[in-house]
Amino acid sequence: MKYCIGIDVGGTTVKMGIFEAEGRLIRKWEIPTRKGEGGKQFIGDAAESIRKALSELQISMEDVLGAGMGVPGPVVANGYVDVCVNLGLHKCYPGDDLSKALGGVKVCLGNDANVAALGEMWQGAGKGHNSICMVTLGTGVGGGLVNEGRMISGVHGLAGEIGHMHVQDEEPEVCNCGGHGCLEQYASATGIVRVAKRNLARTRRASAMRDFGEALSAKDVCDCAKAGDQVALESIRYSMRKLAIVMSHIAMGTDPKLFVIGGGVSRAGSFLTDMIGEYLRDYTPMIGDDPDEVVLAELGNDAGIYGAAKLVLED
Amino acid sequence: MKYCIGIDVGGTTVKMGIFEAEGRLIRKWEIPTRKGEGGKQFIGDAAESIRKALSELQISMEDVLGAGMGVPGPVVANGYVDVCVNLGLHKCYPGDDLSKALGGVKVCLGNDANVAALGEMWQGAGKGHNSICMVTLGTGVGGGLVNEGRMISGVHGLAGEIGHMHVQDEEPEVCNCGGHGCLEQYASATGIVRVAKRNLARTRRASAMRDFGEALSAKDVCDCAKAGDQVALESIRYSMRKLAIVMSHIAMGTDPKLFVIGGGVSRAGSFLTDMIGEYLRDYTPMIGDDPDEVVLAELGNDAGIYGAAKLVLED
Repeated sequence: MKYCIGIDVGGTTVKMGIFEAEGRLIRKWEIPTRKGEGGKQFIGDAAESIRKALSELQISMEDVLGAGMGVPGPVVANGYVDVCVNLGLHKCYPGDDLSKALGGVKVCLGNDANVAALGEMWQGAGKGHNSICMVTLGTGVGGGLVNEGRMISGVHGLAGEIGHMHVQDEEPEVCNCGGHGCLEQYASATGIVRVAKRNLARTRRASAMRDFGEALSAKDVCDCAKAGDQVALESIRYSMRKLAIVMSHIAMGTDPKLFVIGGGVSRAGSFLTDMIGEYLRDYTPMIGDDPDEVVLAELGNDAGIYGAAKLVLED
Repeated sequence: MKYCIGIDVGGTTVKMGIFEAEGRLIRKWEIPTRKGEGGKQFIGDAAESIRKALSELQISMEDVLGAGMGVPGPVVANGYVDVCVNLGLHKCYPGDDLSKALGGVKVCLGNDANVAALGEMWQGAGKGHNSICMVTLGTGVGGGLVNEGRMISGVHGLAGEIGHMHVQDEEPEVCNCGGHGCLEQYASATGIVRVAKRNLARTRRASAMRDFGEALSAKDVCDCAKAGDQVALESIRYSMRKLAIVMSHIAMGTDPKLFVIGGGVSRAGSFLTDMIGEYLRDYTPMIGDDPDEVVLAELGNDAGIYGAAKLVLED
């Protein structure tokens, strides 16, 4: 039996998993992310904890095909990281350090959102397909593209940064990226709330959303919309239409088999994916109607470790 | 010496080229496209004319690595064509027929716009890079994406169909694809004229474009804009801004090294690419300023045969 290791590095925790090469997760755990030593302390910590887990499972390093690692920042295809703010990394090849710490085993690196897309393709909602797009609706909007089984990284490591695609002219507020009118400003959890609050301020119509005051959350907006609240429904429709336009551009750009929707906002379920799918079909008349084109993610927070492990196999 | 053959099938002519595997074009020619036999008569014609050319050049079929063929319609990665209106093809694998007609040589198939992108990457404006996007501004707007040296085809063969990305809400006129507000409606040669005529109808300002009456062409719009005509400049700026938004989505989607602009409209030269580049940088603040990100195509009508030949080598 051969194994591969998946590592998903976040600003707070490092998630790890040991997988059979066929895709079965046999152990997962996490450790806190320590950021000392130019941001790389977590690499030694991760290596040590992996060695320990392998030893407990009586797996020899010779049976480990390699380790994949997802990090929250742009990663160029050769594994180079120019800057990763959340981890304090700067102009380095973190994969090389991890490989050394694991005795020379093969290590592959990727951006966390791109890697998650690969995970969903391998063992999640995209299983059985080899070209998918994953959309993560959380605090921000992230994305990842897999084409013919290979994760797309991009020459600046920015592939899949769909949250920063321009979807609205004349947006007065500035996005984190420096742009104006990015998808993230409308379709992230924060963006959904922003759109809803703008709509509430513009109308005197009654809306259950008013009861939540400043604390209004994206979940509240979705819940109110599901309950038939018209202002909430118009708000979420506006947000999801912007998302569908971006997805239609991906559909005509790389033409994946399906779109996997994940992240906290996706807990609103088929209410959301049905709505997105309807708009998407409006904007892609060249693609025949496919009711299964927009689906919910299945791996949750484990998508990252699955995808990281799969990186080892695709190389 | 090893050789490969590039074939670019259009509705009127079939262009062909014989290449050294290193990329040098040693002979090119074309024949009329005959569409008998379920659209496939041209395959026999092409095979016969290739055999003749090889014989004249004293190249043995054993030294031919294979032939690539670009066709004007969607091609799935495995070479399947569901329908190709211009050639009358229907549910077939035209590459298999060509392979048989050439004595079993390897044949690779692709969509013509995607194949042209591969050609520009190999020996044209993208030479030295392996991830590019080609944009063809002609009667329509076409596109092709190459990522890490591989052409992206898409699961429906629709990858790179950037002309049908939605860029404008509330467009009353319908696009060829059935959509409303597609890029092609604003940035193709026809689209540029349409935008200019709309602008002329909306204003009483003087414009040199009025002298052309109904016969106004995209070249006239560009020429007037270059000469400082304000209505023409506003028109072409509108069209190129829409194009730049789509390109910014590709930049954040697959993140190619550069964009190659080809097609008849691109004869307007650096006037156009500079304008597109400026807008593109506005919409992609995450990507540092790169003045060489938008360049003119170099292979003209030969991009198709170059790319088709390269298809053989990438497989």
